Amino acid sequence: MDAGASDLIECVPNVSEGRRPEVIAAIGAAAAGVEGVRLLDVHSDHDHHRSVYTFVGSREPVAEAAYRLAEAAATHIDMAAHTGVHPRMGALDVLPFIPLGATPMDLCIELARRVGRRIGEDLGIPVYFYGEAALRSERRLLADIRRGEYEGLRAKIGTDASRAPDAGPARIGRAGATAAGARRPLVAFNMHLRTPNVGIARAIATSVRASSGGLPAVQALGLPTSRPNIVQVSMNLTDLDTTPLHVVVAAVRAEAERRGIGLAESELVGLLPLSAALDASAAMLGLHPLQARQVIELALESEVT
Amino acid sequence: MDAGASDLIECVPNVSEGRRPEVIAAIGAAAAGVEGVRLLDVHSDHDHHRSVYTFVGSREPVAEAAYRLAEAAATHIDMAAHTGVHPRMGALDVLPFIPLGATPMDLCIELARRVGRRIGEDLGIPVYFYGEAALRSERRLLADIRRGEYEGLRAKIGTDASRAPDAGPARIGRAGATAAGARRPLVAFNMHLRTPNVGIARAIATSVRASSGGLPAVQALGLPTSRPNIVQVSMNLTDLDTTPLHVVVAAVRAEAERRGIGLAESELVGLLPLSAALDASAAMLGLHPLQARQVIELALESEVT
Repeated sequence: MDAGASDLIECVPNVSEGRRPEVIAAIGAAAAGVEGVRLLDVHSDHDHHRSVYTFVGSREPVAEAAYRLAEAAATHIDMAAHTGVHPRMGALDVLPFIPLGATPMDLCIELARRVGRRIGEDLGIPVYFYGEAALRSERRLLADIRRGEYEGLRAKIGTDASRAPDAGPARIGRAGATAAGARRPLVAFNMHLRTPNVGIARAIATSVRASSGGLPAVQALGLPTSRPNIVQVSMNLTDLDTTPLHVVVAAVRAEAERRGIGLAESELVGLLPLSAALDASAAMLGLHPLQARQVIELALESEVT
Repeated sequence: MDAGASDLIECVPNVSEGRRPEVIAAIGAAAAGVEGVRLLDVHSDHDHHRSVYTFVGSREPVAEAAYRLAEAAATHIDMAAHTGVHPRMGALDVLPFIPLGATPMDLCIELARRVGRRIGEDLGIPVYFYGEAALRSERRLLADIRRGEYEGLRAKIGTDASRAPDAGPARIGRAGATAAGARRPLVAFNMHLRTPNVGIARAIATSVRASSGGLPAVQALGLPTSRPNIVQVSMNLTDLDTTPLHVVVAAVRAEAERRGIGLAESELVGLLPLSAALDASAAMLGLHPLQARQVIELALESEVT
């Protein structure tokens, strides 16, 4: 796989199943079975009752794999029976396409809309286009589309014109609804606080997130976990050039220390861009910066012609 | 270049020239001119008056490049006129061969001795074998070979049997002497303290280094720099599995904080193994651990078959 190819695309579907291993595997296999697609990571969370798949490939294999994954999720998941602490509205809840390397964003926008329409028409699932693929400005943000979650959307989709889908029927079945979109790379990262008080996680999330005047390009929620005395600050970083991951981690750490709360291990959901790993390393070591050519294995590769 | 090849070797010569750019370049070019060798990094330090070259290749190209670099260093450098804050005894001061990937250490030991004998015989330079290539147990450590530095060795080499070289003549010329050896990968890392007092750098070096009861597999010296109000803790980490880089950095930082001394930027000499970069990143982010397959560019490569 040529990381410099101009149609290399990452697809990171979020699926509302994080508890049944055989179902999680079957949904991943539906995508991985498409030739030319590589499934790089599956991250399942029991408390969220959610799995995040990461696969890559060129345009047409990724389109086919995304559709087959949507179909498998709809087959195996009944949203009417789904509970979990993470907001969600569908079996295949979110379907983002991300340009890698030199791939243009336009290609991901086209792909999100094309695959979204196929899911809408062939599987009868209402689909909303978000991010760079949004057709309406009020649908750029996932949180706005997902307001009320599965249950709220089910009640309103047939009657509230503002909730009418961009593709597929204006009615909700077992598979719920899907948000399909195009976006830049994003890092999903959870930090864990040693306290039973989810209010502290919510307060710290509020203090660091952009929408409350915190760090730009940071989304954050305070959530409970099933582990005793552990609560979670669950974050999405949407622009690492604006706010690097290690800066957010330091901010949450400082907020926790200020409240006398210890930290348990962090959790990376999906994959991290190499630049984010090197930037965090540089911050730890006091280097400014650490470049790929200063790492022996990476220097060796870049010298290969 | 195939990083999985079984005779891929890294060579990291330390040369006593860090001030004349045209000489630094000429010495590097002598090695880089050998087909099959890739010069990955040149790190020059004005205060140390020293440059560290990093090149890689398979056995025979690396042997030839190391010899040519020794020859170029002997041509351009007069040790009788050399001053610098870093301990040194020769124009080509240290010549380590390091196995990469699946390369056996024995291959590097053979190479160090073969190239060392050629330098001794053809260039008339006394050579000592150190590290894994040492012929005498008291010569395993570089610091023991280099005791008294160029000036001390010049005075004793002809008369003190314990200083007799392992190859080449028992007399010192303009090019001084060379230590040739084989070793595992090592990280050379300098941290800078915001104080004019080199005694504080020496005290912190003493507190963290293995030989004074500090961290295992850490060598450290306190050195002055030419920057106003900046002194240096100059370190070699000889076994990152035993003491990771980020642990040493945290220890030096804690010692500095305890004394109320601020840190300026750190400095990496040569290259860092990928695992050290990922470990530092994991420590910064609170992950345990961060694996290469969690970094998208690295996951993509490892999936290529």
